[in-house]
Amino acid sequence: MTSRHPLSALRILPYLAKWTLLAALVAAASGSASALFLWALELATATRISHPWLIWLLPVAGWLVSWVYLKVGTQVEAGNNLLIDEIHDPRKVVPLRMAPLVLGATVISHLFGASVGREGTAVQMGGSLADQLTHLFRLRHEERRIVLMAGISAGFASVFGTPLAGAIFALEVLAIGRLRYDAIFPCMLAAILADQVCMAWGIQHSHYAAGALPAISAWSLLAVLLAGLAFGLTAWLFASSTHALTALLKRYLPYAPLRALAGGVVLALAVYMLGQRYIGLGIPVMMEAFQQPLPWWDSAGKLAFTVASLGSGYKGGEVTPLFFIGATLGNALAPLLQLPFGMLAALGFVAVFAGAANTPLACTIMAIELFGPQLGPYAALACVMAYLCSGHSGIYRAQTVAVHKHRMGPPEA
Amino acid sequence: MTSRHPLSALRILPYLAKWTLLAALVAAASGSASALFLWALELATATRISHPWLIWLLPVAGWLVSWVYLKVGTQVEAGNNLLIDEIHDPRKVVPLRMAPLVLGATVISHLFGASVGREGTAVQMGGSLADQLTHLFRLRHEERRIVLMAGISAGFASVFGTPLAGAIFALEVLAIGRLRYDAIFPCMLAAILADQVCMAWGIQHSHYAAGALPAISAWSLLAVLLAGLAFGLTAWLFASSTHALTALLKRYLPYAPLRALAGGVVLALAVYMLGQRYIGLGIPVMMEAFQQPLPWWDSAGKLAFTVASLGSGYKGGEVTPLFFIGATLGNALAPLLQLPFGMLAALGFVAVFAGAANTPLACTIMAIELFGPQLGPYAALACVMAYLCSGHSGIYRAQTVAVHKHRMGPPEA
Repeated sequence: MTSRHPLSALRILPYLAKWTLLAALVAAASGSASALFLWALELATATRISHPWLIWLLPVAGWLVSWVYLKVGTQVEAGNNLLIDEIHDPRKVVPLRMAPLVLGATVISHLFGASVGREGTAVQMGGSLADQLTHLFRLRHEERRIVLMAGISAGFASVFGTPLAGAIFALEVLAIGRLRYDAIFPCMLAAILADQVCMAWGIQHSHYAAGALPAISAWSLLAVLLAGLAFGLTAWLFASSTHALTALLKRYLPYAPLRALAGGVVLALAVYMLGQRYIGLGIPVMMEAFQQPLPWWDSAGKLAFTVASLGSGYKGGEVTPLFFIGATLGNALAPLLQLPFGMLAALGFVAVFAGAANTPLACTIMAIELFGPQLGPYAALACVMAYLCSGHSGIYRAQTVAVHKHRMGPPEA
Repeated sequence: MTSRHPLSALRILPYLAKWTLLAALVAAASGSASALFLWALELATATRISHPWLIWLLPVAGWLVSWVYLKVGTQVEAGNNLLIDEIHDPRKVVPLRMAPLVLGATVISHLFGASVGREGTAVQMGGSLADQLTHLFRLRHEERRIVLMAGISAGFASVFGTPLAGAIFALEVLAIGRLRYDAIFPCMLAAILADQVCMAWGIQHSHYAAGALPAISAWSLLAVLLAGLAFGLTAWLFASSTHALTALLKRYLPYAPLRALAGGVVLALAVYMLGQRYIGLGIPVMMEAFQQPLPWWDSAGKLAFTVASLGSGYKGGEVTPLFFIGATLGNALAPLLQLPFGMLAALGFVAVFAGAANTPLACTIMAIELFGPQLGPYAALACVMAYLCSGHSGIYRAQTVAVHKHRMGPPEA
């Protein structure tokens, strides 16, 4: 395995040259796609806000998108899970059409007022664009895995402006309890470059401020562990409800466009009664969650709207709604735990997502990238607690369980 | 594996309660030991600097320490490697005497002027103190692994003041290419608490400033990749030379005290000719490396002194000398790569260590904890490059190879 030849370490140079080129291509494609997507998303959100009646067209839009997927998208319908499956067991190149389909479908979700996110879209665009290099460079199975992971990394990094979190996310999301390093170089490089490409297109990311933090004390640590428990249970509730509603609707409404229609009607009526607070990305409410007390039911409201949207088949992603749910839940917990709103909102922002996606390290690093290193120890505890308390079935059902979260096995199980 | 019971996620509570208690005990012991050690180290360093003739006693001191280890320390001589071996294959509780022996031996190394570090000492104190909980709490084999990892985490975190890096280091150092999450909660909590305990004893850590960074550009990224290559080859050279010199001396001088005596004579003569620049921790030179141009041979000098010290059996650790070697090498590369001294010194500081210990994530996080998140993307690239270019035999020979660095295998090899 090892070699004592003085320059044996240099045997890696061809590997580095090849993957630098591939990562740069992945980053260029994926970063540009994210930029286009974020620009379209902003336009769609602004249009929805200035034309509130658009919500009444949501059922029709949902029907249409579902119908299009049924006609030309059944192969790519599984989305993130398809990518994870292909990385675990490489079979067939992901069709390029995944990118325009998910891009169009997500922009429509946001234009007409579903409650969905954007990471799923960015990751799917990144993955499917990256996989097109498979034919071009005649990549082998094992290389396809790496290029797909680089695509996920680039998509995530560029859509949120968090390069290190994107790279770690791609390495971490495949299996619960284990992180493998075989794609670490392509993922890191693709993430950093894709983030730069996206910003070079003029995209600016939202900034949230966690504000001043209390000094670490026995109470502040215990409070963060308790908050992490709440974040983890919320993540569990979110993932289980989404899976349960999806399964239920599939049983009673086997025709997909009908599910989107029904979900759209329910969402439109809910918006009619409760207002626009819980649809779209919800960035203004998230901003408020860092600053001032909000109604305690905000996280429950967003959870219900998002589960309804995803369960009835609207495209987008889970992550930005999870940020919203976490930030508002943190906001509600802050007075109970006697800690600042900004701190708890920031912890909830990353930790509910950490629990739902089973990615505690990516989310800890995201906390540092978004809110600064002072939050690091608190974020690590909150994310690890949420990860431990969210059960073994997260939002990605293709994710495997490599190491049980708390039942201990032999060293090398 | 999964359960739909609403509160099945709460089955984790007993696990959390138990490991919160154990992590707190580990942290209290290990953080206090690190504080005592850092205080003694400062005293020893100050005494050595004000009494330069102490270097002439180094051979005798080395002889004595080796003789004591031969009499009462053969079981704990393997140091960090013993801990890693026990985690891979738990057999026998690490004797408590490891802690006072390595503490005393390291302080003597520094008092008389060997070139060694301090992470080995902190990690060994943390590990052996933590393992004493095994009898007290009747821990099973799998739990012993976790408590040992928590001890490593606490020792590393408290001696450098970098809690997250400490936790990730303990998870990452066991095997090349894989990180498992089964100890993530105890390691995180022990690291954060041990850091607090150590600071509560009044310890202050050195601060280094990376200074202003250039905006990310094609050149700055390429330059950092090239620097990472140099850092990785240096890490490889360091690890191979240390192993080679150790093996060579063992062959020709099988009696350990004689090796220390011979090494001590060589080091004392070298200090007589070249001065004190390359002995001890070398923190003042490291500070300079962030600010101003230094002689290009500084990293080679420190490498030679440290290999001679470790190879002839002086106790301490590799990491602070690796920081020195990296920071001064970065300093020397800065004008060639047209990048600021502070930036390259900071990158070298973490990346040579990343390559030598095969811990790129811990070192990236350490860079963020020490130098701020702006350095994050650069540090990630430099650390990953150094990791890839340092070969498969790092400074810890008990480390196993879980995933080859660049030869790709099947997905779940």
